[in-house]
Amino acid sequence: MKKIVVIGATGTLGQAVAAALKVRHEVIEVGATRGAHRVDSTDPASIEQLFREIGKVDGIVTATGKVHFGPLPEMTVEQFWTGLRDKLMGQINFVLGAQRYVNDGGSFTLTSGILADEPIREGASATTVNLALEGFVRGSAIELPRGLRINVVSPTVLVESMDAYAPYFRGFEPVTAARAAQGYLRSVEGAETGRVYRVGY
Amino acid sequence: MKKIVVIGATGTLGQAVAAALKVRHEVIEVGATRGAHRVDSTDPASIEQLFREIGKVDGIVTATGKVHFGPLPEMTVEQFWTGLRDKLMGQINFVLGAQRYVNDGGSFTLTSGILADEPIREGASATTVNLALEGFVRGSAIELPRGLRINVVSPTVLVESMDAYAPYFRGFEPVTAARAAQGYLRSVEGAETGRVYRVGY
Ligand SMILES: NC(=O)c1ccc[n+]([C@@H]2O[C@H](COP(=O)([O-])OP(=O)(O)OC[C@H]3O[C@@H](n4cnc5c(N)ncnc54)[C@H](OP(=O)(O)O)[C@@H]3O)[C@@H](O)[C@H]2O)c1
Ligand SMILES: NC(=O)c1ccc[n+]([C@@H]2O[C@H](COP(=O)([O-])OP(=O)(O)OC[C@H]3O[C@@H](n4cnc5c(N)ncnc54)[C@H](OP(=O)(O)O)[C@@H]3O)[C@@H](O)[C@H]2O)c1
Repeated sequence: MKKIVVIGATGTLGQAVAAALKVRHEVIEVGATRGAHRVDSTDPASIEQLFREIGKVDGIVTATGKVHFGPLPEMTVEQFWTGLRDKLMGQINFVLGAQRYVNDGGSFTLTSGILADEPIREGASATTVNLALEGFVRGSAIELPRGLRINVVSPTVLVESMDAYAPYFRGFEPVTAARAAQGYLRSVEGAETGRVYRVGY
Repeated sequence: MKKIVVIGATGTLGQAVAAALKVRHEVIEVGATRGAHRVDSTDPASIEQLFREIGKVDGIVTATGKVHFGPLPEMTVEQFWTGLRDKLMGQINFVLGAQRYVNDGGSFTLTSGILADEPIREGASATTVNLALEGFVRGSAIELPRGLRINVVSPTVLVESMDAYAPYFRGFEPVTAARAAQGYLRSVEGAETGRVYRVGY
């Protein structure tokens, strides 16, 4: 039994990840505006405050992240920055800022998504940010100390999100959030590091 | 004969790219602190000012970009932001901000580097930024209007940089900047879009 904190545990994906982990582990569920514990993952001071509250853990899972979707010819620099600040640094901030709160041999598990590999219209920012996350995992896995591991889960679009996202994802086969959650189990309970776990594609 | 602007044309790589393009094209060489034309690629207003000076072009090549190198366990969030602001957005800013200054059928050619594929110690920020650039090219290639193309060149370490970089790149075979420049010719003069041109690895 490990102690795992799930950032974004109130979200569509994060709820399923927390549920899957709870079967065998102690799970601390963290949201931005909901839940017993809250954090603003874009703010390093807020992350530090969270770990002062919850103490050391065996793993940090991040299932958060906004990016701007919109036509490339109209996308502004400021809109593009949203994804860098929120989905990209909102996950990397935990690795840079909370390493000392993760016990030896513990894990980081980040979230990218199918748009890393399969671009769609209006998705240039998402594809950029998702591959950046995979790059961070590739680069940092070889340097983490104390047997710490880092992986990223890249699910295809979720069944639960198809009401909102279907027009962007014609012809993509969605997976349930419960199935996507299996990728997180591979990362948290497995032995690998530097991996991208694609789910459903 | 095309009119091509090379951003970073005073640099180790950019000088060779400008020289190779000049054989058949009109080349406008732009530096940050040197050269007839100057720009701060991290500042969208400075980019706008540059294109007011030089007018429309058939291609924009960017060969710029700082990232922070340092041990991951000590890397600060602020150090990590350097690469996002400078190497990543310092190239993407041209695509978001200067599209209307590129003639129909023109091209963008960005620069990543071997660390996208091959992580090294102290290079987590570089690997992140380089893959982010490749993601941006993958995502934006399918959306650019008017036959505009976008590619990225990923050279291995340059012979000309080995004095400074050798300790980071033991066992890597360097290429000359002149050879790396060939990747830019493939992008500027070829017909493909959304490609990563790896050179020397
Ligand atoms: N949904 C999909 O189809 C799908 C597919 C592939 C990948 N993904 C990726 O999976 C991640 C989660 O997506 P989702 O659909 O589950 O999103 P979601 O339902 O909107 O949930 C987002 C979660 O993140 C939290 N959050 C938002 N801003 C935060 C901040 N600044 N700091 C800390 N937590 C914050 C939210 O907390 P509150 O509830 O308190 O606001 C919520 O728990 C995203 O990176 C997304 O790109 C999603
Ligand atoms: N060198 C290598 O071995 C190697 C290998 C693979 C990839 N790369 C990549 O290639 C790119 C160029 O590397 P390099 O070694 O040629 O670098 P460099 O010699 O330091 O040259 C940098 C160039 O960018 C310009 N520049 C710097 N900051 C700028 C800014 N804010 N706005 C506009 N221009 C700016 C510089 O202008 P001034 O001269 O006026 O300062 C110079 O022309 C980098 O992205 C690097 O990661 C390099």
